[in-house]
Amino acid sequence: MKISIAQLNYHIGNFEGNLKKMLDAVETAKLQEADLIVFSELSTCGYPPRDFLEFEDFIQLSNDCIEQLAVASKDIAIAVGAPRINPVIEGKDLFNAGYFLADGKILHIAHKALLPTYDIFDEYRYFEPGNTFEVVEFKGKRIALTICEDIWNVGNDNPLYTICPMDEMMPQKPDFILNLSASPFSYEQAHSRLHTIKANIDKYKIPMFYVNHCGSQTEVIFDGGSVVMSPDGKVYDELPYFVECIRTYELDEVMEGGLNREQPKDKIQLIHDALLLGIRDYFGKLGLKKAVLGLSGGIDSAVVAVLAQRALGAQNVRVLLMPSQFSSDHSINDARQLALNLNIQYDIIYIEEAYQAYESLLKPHFAGTTFNVTEENIQARIRGMLLMAISNKFGNILLNTSNKSESAVGYGTLYGDMAGGLSVIMDIYKTEVYALAEYMNKNGEVIPENTITKPPSAELRPNQKDSDSLPDYDILDQILYNYIEKRQGPKELIAMGFDEALVQRILKLVNRNEFKRYQTAPSLRVSPKAFGMGRRMPIVGKYLS
Amino acid sequence: MKISIAQLNYHIGNFEGNLKKMLDAVETAKLQEADLIVFSELSTCGYPPRDFLEFEDFIQLSNDCIEQLAVASKDIAIAVGAPRINPVIEGKDLFNAGYFLADGKILHIAHKALLPTYDIFDEYRYFEPGNTFEVVEFKGKRIALTICEDIWNVGNDNPLYTICPMDEMMPQKPDFILNLSASPFSYEQAHSRLHTIKANIDKYKIPMFYVNHCGSQTEVIFDGGSVVMSPDGKVYDELPYFVECIRTYELDEVMEGGLNREQPKDKIQLIHDALLLGIRDYFGKLGLKKAVLGLSGGIDSAVVAVLAQRALGAQNVRVLLMPSQFSSDHSINDARQLALNLNIQYDIIYIEEAYQAYESLLKPHFAGTTFNVTEENIQARIRGMLLMAISNKFGNILLNTSNKSESAVGYGTLYGDMAGGLSVIMDIYKTEVYALAEYMNKNGEVIPENTITKPPSAELRPNQKDSDSLPDYDILDQILYNYIEKRQGPKELIAMGFDEALVQRILKLVNRNEFKRYQTAPSLRVSPKAFGMGRRMPIVGKYLS
Repeated sequence: MKISIAQLNYHIGNFEGNLKKMLDAVETAKLQEADLIVFSELSTCGYPPRDFLEFEDFIQLSNDCIEQLAVASKDIAIAVGAPRINPVIEGKDLFNAGYFLADGKILHIAHKALLPTYDIFDEYRYFEPGNTFEVVEFKGKRIALTICEDIWNVGNDNPLYTICPMDEMMPQKPDFILNLSASPFSYEQAHSRLHTIKANIDKYKIPMFYVNHCGSQTEVIFDGGSVVMSPDGKVYDELPYFVECIRTYELDEVMEGGLNREQPKDKIQLIHDALLLGIRDYFGKLGLKKAVLGLSGGIDSAVVAVLAQRALGAQNVRVLLMPSQFSSDHSINDARQLALNLNIQYDIIYIEEAYQAYESLLKPHFAGTTFNVTEENIQARIRGMLLMAISNKFGNILLNTSNKSESAVGYGTLYGDMAGGLSVIMDIYKTEVYALAEYMNKNGEVIPENTITKPPSAELRPNQKDSDSLPDYDILDQILYNYIEKRQGPKELIAMGFDEALVQRILKLVNRNEFKRYQTAPSLRVSPKAFGMGRRMPIVGKYLS
Repeated sequence: MKISIAQLNYHIGNFEGNLKKMLDAVETAKLQEADLIVFSELSTCGYPPRDFLEFEDFIQLSNDCIEQLAVASKDIAIAVGAPRINPVIEGKDLFNAGYFLADGKILHIAHKALLPTYDIFDEYRYFEPGNTFEVVEFKGKRIALTICEDIWNVGNDNPLYTICPMDEMMPQKPDFILNLSASPFSYEQAHSRLHTIKANIDKYKIPMFYVNHCGSQTEVIFDGGSVVMSPDGKVYDELPYFVECIRTYELDEVMEGGLNREQPKDKIQLIHDALLLGIRDYFGKLGLKKAVLGLSGGIDSAVVAVLAQRALGAQNVRVLLMPSQFSSDHSINDARQLALNLNIQYDIIYIEEAYQAYESLLKPHFAGTTFNVTEENIQARIRGMLLMAISNKFGNILLNTSNKSESAVGYGTLYGDMAGGLSVIMDIYKTEVYALAEYMNKNGEVIPENTITKPPSAELRPNQKDSDSLPDYDILDQILYNYIEKRQGPKELIAMGFDEALVQRILKLVNRNEFKRYQTAPSLRVSPKAFGMGRRMPIVGKYLS
């Protein structure tokens, strides 16, 4: 038996486009003489469809796709993920289903039993957990059709669920496992994925064809990296990351094993490539082309400019340099040099005239007060306003350049440097931004060396440096990582050796600045715990704040 | 047996404050000679605690409260909601528990079995569903201790869950039901609540003591309205909305029935009072006092100003009037008259100087273009910037004045009139804003009549009116209500008689403007479906867009 796996880039709600893509893949698989082609989870509608699932019309459009795929299953079987209406009145109205189509009709439907409802996932919001576990028979083989999380309760010390779908199916002696996934990227995810698949194979001793979604959906990036694993627990094949790919395998050869084609997994390279896909799909799927951002001469905007230029092309990226009276010469020079290196349009707008206008308007109301963060924010907001003016006039989407460290502690201005349609590096700590810059320069200077080596500064008052108000990023990032990604509380952090007063100050900053992050653009997710839909915190509260 | 119900206003993560409040209530109940006092769901930590639940430290602080309440339960029993660590390794790490404390110790723990995971609710994100159902015996009575949603699977045509906890407990012949709730306000909720409680009583024929949380937590407002229902299915007592209240009942009298003390349920009055609590708690729980907003002379900012003044006091509200060359005289006069009526500080800042500065800075870059939405946005953003400058300098929190109709269709400027720390009326359609204004004027003119009667306009270009680019609000609001609150798709809307082209245009506007709403401040929720945490839509998609 020959099995094709189709790692494709879907578009949420674009039923026509998704169906066409799958029908084209069916033709490709037929040319490769496949008996079966496997798509990923909820591939008719794209993943995550979120509250669109509450619209009957949306479900009907998905059902129409399934019908047309069934028609296409005359000479080849098709396994495809889609929502399915729950025929029982009690319980949620939908299942997250895997359809097995063959001979022009629906041969079998599996219901996802383990519904991830943590981090970015909300599946129990929409779906009733599956409670029947039947293998499907096709051409003499018994196939265990599972959906994403269904295989993830194996190989953990602290399993999230009380059942394992494969345990339920093993008495029916399946020959192999299909897993239809939509498992999002983080820089750890490819490791976790292989660990989990191997834990299943070690336990059940049959091969698995794991098909992942590849593509970015607003903030969530799906990396592909689909896996075929042989019963010996070795990776028979791992598909490339961040690109579409269709490959066909002879089941007997997979059973036998012997191949071991893993992808390299360099953290910074993965993040770099993930962000390119994230930008490209955000623009491409919204029908947009052009980006704009402000270049300060600092490292954050430099890294975002490089990513934008690589993702969208030099002709589609323009930048503004917006010096104030507090800007240093090197900032303008470094920013200009970067724009020249990237061959992107740059314009310089001196903001002092606008600043003076505000000063004049506010003077009667600010009598008796002194220069403070208010005036710093005004500068940042003038820049945000100018960028938005270019955005509105010419259709360039403003890219936000805030990093994770400063977003965490609220070191940024709402409606100023926190403005933008997409936050490109808000899931990347400052220390990682440096690593990314070094990576970008590995084949020669793209980002000017001075941008990388000079001390970070917002340049909103004379001789300002980040280190005036923040601890060293080396320390700050460690505390933030352990608090945010690892959910370590103050006691644990202090036990790790971090200074008690510093820990309390940082955690308080993080919690008190929730209101700022609430209002920032969606942030491309590359870590196991990003700000945004995967981290849900009260604004009004009194915990560590 | 005498039973006290304590409808209190908790503060998320403020364990010390919540504990003190409960211990005080215990003393009050003792003075009223109660045998048992009942608090609401997750009252140790406040509701919804969201991802704070993932911190062991947070759970430990809650456990400490339970220990101290147990100590206080020597002469009175206490029923109280709190998270509880799941002692079993499989499944989620926590239960949403109801503790029954008596004689200085934990007598019984009930686990919530039905975990709401829809709209604003994310309970399956944190909690394992309870799977044991035991009544607790106390002073010769058998008590069914349930938590919020546990009673909500009764009385629906389309039950969300496959079990009913009370069905499981009835064989143990409970004498009465306790329900510990955190059930948020919407203008329909008090009706639904009574319907559901009555459906339970009609089915199980025993009385219920339903204790709700009262207080606002960021966007979610809990209205109180706790209920005691007799076995005859009549409301024995309904506690007031939006205020704390402790009342004690003799069980025998409740059994007998005969009282019928329901609260009035006028939709607009409920919304009005809910918003006052929402503003008051947002400020009070964050330790803030003062608000600022822009008064345009239009109805939205007028209604928000009245709400702010009533919630925070005239001395804590200041407004800016920021006319441009496109502002009409009546706008300034109407705004000034309102400020005088409310006795709040107002300042006038003419924005033209700032506008000219931007015009001058952008002139070389805008060569060959004409005045369009870009220039309109610049005006709105100058106003947002001035308001934020006042906010930053003097600590007044900016109140956002966008209504639900304009937020839905994207008729507003990001970082301009969409700026602010709290969206006060973003869950209220324009037609309801008018109703609210009439309600405010019922005892004499507060909002100038002209503000109510003149045609709505953003005044961002000469002679602009909302009706230039939007359909009549009467029609628009109906389409929006059916699409947003009722999840009716295009086919259903057209079948209702709405114009097909208009429906398609409106739905497209709603979906394409998701990116704007993503970046707006939390919005006080008063409807069954508000923008924000309860409505989760993809930004990147291609459905009705």
